[in-house]
Amino acid sequence: MLRQIRLAGRVPRIELASQTGMSRATVTTITAEFLNAGLIEEIARPDNTPDTRRGRPRVDLKIRGAAHALVGAKISYRQLSLILLDFEGEELGELEMQLPAETFSPDRLADLFADAVDRLARNAGLTSDDVSGVGLGIAGIVQAAEGVVYWSPSLSERNVALGEVLTRRLGRPVFVDNDANLVALAEQTFGLGQSHSDFIVVTIESGVGMGIVIGGELYRGTRGCGAEFGHTKVHLDGALCRCGQRGCLEAYVADYALLREALTVPGDDPTAPPAARIETLLNAARAGDATARSIVDRAGRMFALGLANLVNIFDPELIILAGEQMQFDHLFADEVIAAIRTSIVQIDKPPPEVVIHKWGNLMWAKGAAAYALDHVTDLALAGLSDNAA
Amino acid sequence: MLRQIRLAGRVPRIELASQTGMSRATVTTITAEFLNAGLIEEIARPDNTPDTRRGRPRVDLKIRGAAHALVGAKISYRQLSLILLDFEGEELGELEMQLPAETFSPDRLADLFADAVDRLARNAGLTSDDVSGVGLGIAGIVQAAEGVVYWSPSLSERNVALGEVLTRRLGRPVFVDNDANLVALAEQTFGLGQSHSDFIVVTIESGVGMGIVIGGELYRGTRGCGAEFGHTKVHLDGALCRCGQRGCLEAYVADYALLREALTVPGDDPTAPPAARIETLLNAARAGDATARSIVDRAGRMFALGLANLVNIFDPELIILAGEQMQFDHLFADEVIAAIRTSIVQIDKPPPEVVIHKWGNLMWAKGAAAYALDHVTDLALAGLSDNAA
Repeated sequence: MLRQIRLAGRVPRIELASQTGMSRATVTTITAEFLNAGLIEEIARPDNTPDTRRGRPRVDLKIRGAAHALVGAKISYRQLSLILLDFEGEELGELEMQLPAETFSPDRLADLFADAVDRLARNAGLTSDDVSGVGLGIAGIVQAAEGVVYWSPSLSERNVALGEVLTRRLGRPVFVDNDANLVALAEQTFGLGQSHSDFIVVTIESGVGMGIVIGGELYRGTRGCGAEFGHTKVHLDGALCRCGQRGCLEAYVADYALLREALTVPGDDPTAPPAARIETLLNAARAGDATARSIVDRAGRMFALGLANLVNIFDPELIILAGEQMQFDHLFADEVIAAIRTSIVQIDKPPPEVVIHKWGNLMWAKGAAAYALDHVTDLALAGLSDNAA
Repeated sequence: MLRQIRLAGRVPRIELASQTGMSRATVTTITAEFLNAGLIEEIARPDNTPDTRRGRPRVDLKIRGAAHALVGAKISYRQLSLILLDFEGEELGELEMQLPAETFSPDRLADLFADAVDRLARNAGLTSDDVSGVGLGIAGIVQAAEGVVYWSPSLSERNVALGEVLTRRLGRPVFVDNDANLVALAEQTFGLGQSHSDFIVVTIESGVGMGIVIGGELYRGTRGCGAEFGHTKVHLDGALCRCGQRGCLEAYVADYALLREALTVPGDDPTAPPAARIETLLNAARAGDATARSIVDRAGRMFALGLANLVNIFDPELIILAGEQMQFDHLFADEVIAAIRTSIVQIDKPPPEVVIHKWGNLMWAKGAAAYALDHVTDLALAGLSDNAA
């Protein structure tokens, strides 16, 4: 019912009864508990018409924003992005900071993270102690239920109980998940996924990630290492991947994959920073250089092949391609989308919608905040039923 | 609760209460409805100890087998396999018949099908009218909810409302689904899937099929054409597939894929029937012929690559490889299973279990019967709640 109120924004009790199929008395009882716990509040109707029978103003129910403050965070390459939301999902503040290195020990990361959360809270006139929960999205292989990171490009160790480490250091509950899963959650909570129960989010950064929503629920696999789209194989004994295996999709579409072929592109300077070299490569492709085009085109076709495989396996309603930087425009090209459509099983029905959604790191952080919000809501509701028992 | 009784086989009311968390009074009320509707029956305990308080014999509840008769059917290449089950899942009869052609018009198939169902029922001392529901598994692309077959190798037309056609012809409700989905349902109802909530079944016949169970439910995709594992692409612009596209997994592992490379194998006779040529090829490979080995090995490695992709995407607990014929032994080889393990994302956890389950067509038919049983149960329960309202 709390979810219904959240979705509606503001809603009268009688409408909640008809939406949930519960009796008005049950709705009144349950919402009274929520009111007592401070999770929701009453708000006068905009038109402020008095209840004719009782002669008092009619009220709607809404989520009480001040009930909880939540932090969402996303660790990406040398950058930490944080957002502070209230319980209604309204933004109270944000913070982006450069990280001093690429990989960290768990304790070092915990120190940096605790400082950042504290700074973010103080900027909004709060302290860390006012934060009810923190969500963190991190690239890599994460067992979300236990907050264990089997492997991440941001950590110098494997098999880190990062949720525990951060919870201990912050003194607040911290919930960790794979970052692409949290983008899927953000789409479901705030974005295009609100109106879809089965969709796939594919994220493109230096790696390729995926989040799967099936039947309205995030699907995480049974060991916490599903949705590794970037490491699905698109070529037997193919190009070498950073993971050590051959033929992974990432080994054809990631930055480093493009760059190892870029040496023969006119103007390429192997001593330049990766981003500059990618820029040179893409400019050369746009200018019609055949070598550059060949590199970029193959990446696009491999990406389309991988996406078509997802369609053939999942048959989703919607695929959301989520990436921030312009440098991935070649993967979002019309030819790539068209190539997906010709590589899927053909039936006399329209193919799934493919939507491009360019997000900044703060939107990834917002997904992490949504994850914290879900957990904090569950904890609050569990508290209510403990009191009732 | 009916499912609990079905799973338990026989169970006392008090145990149902503790399993479902319902009160004993609620369990008594609901099971009384089931008893009245004839869906379950009481049966004396084996030890026959009297209830000390009430002085009457203790009873267990069990599904009443005679409540419904169900037919399951599977159409494969030139063959129709049927099984007749009672409501307990006990087999009452089976029937296998050769089909006079490879493809049929919907009406012609309906005639053959109705005859077969009638014959099966009569063999068991029943008539078609005694059959409460029929499940049919068919290769191809099926929208199960509406029983529409977008395409099947057994039908001469596309977009056939086969469920409707068969229901009209038989006068009994017929439920149609993709055959691999029904193998997954059979594994869930009668087989290895009983103890797993997330597993994948991969079927190998002349094509490669897949059924996905997530969270204890069969996942069918949103347009009815998901789980097309055989048409996931394993090579950009690769080998030509029967579907007209290039690089599909089937184009590397199916019979016809092996045979188009078999011409250079010693002893191959291109005028011999396909099964005989496959036999020659596999024998040559076993005898160490390098050409034959190369063909068979590549098929196995491509198959392993495709399965590793499924693991990387789904991270299931279990993969069941279901195929009947010995001719697929090369795909079930230890090297293939080992290749899966080296191609999945490596974490410090054991890889998912891969189990080989050799089934005949009658077990596919049993899955179809389980599908009919689910539908008939739903109809019976809907009837109960209509009466209650």
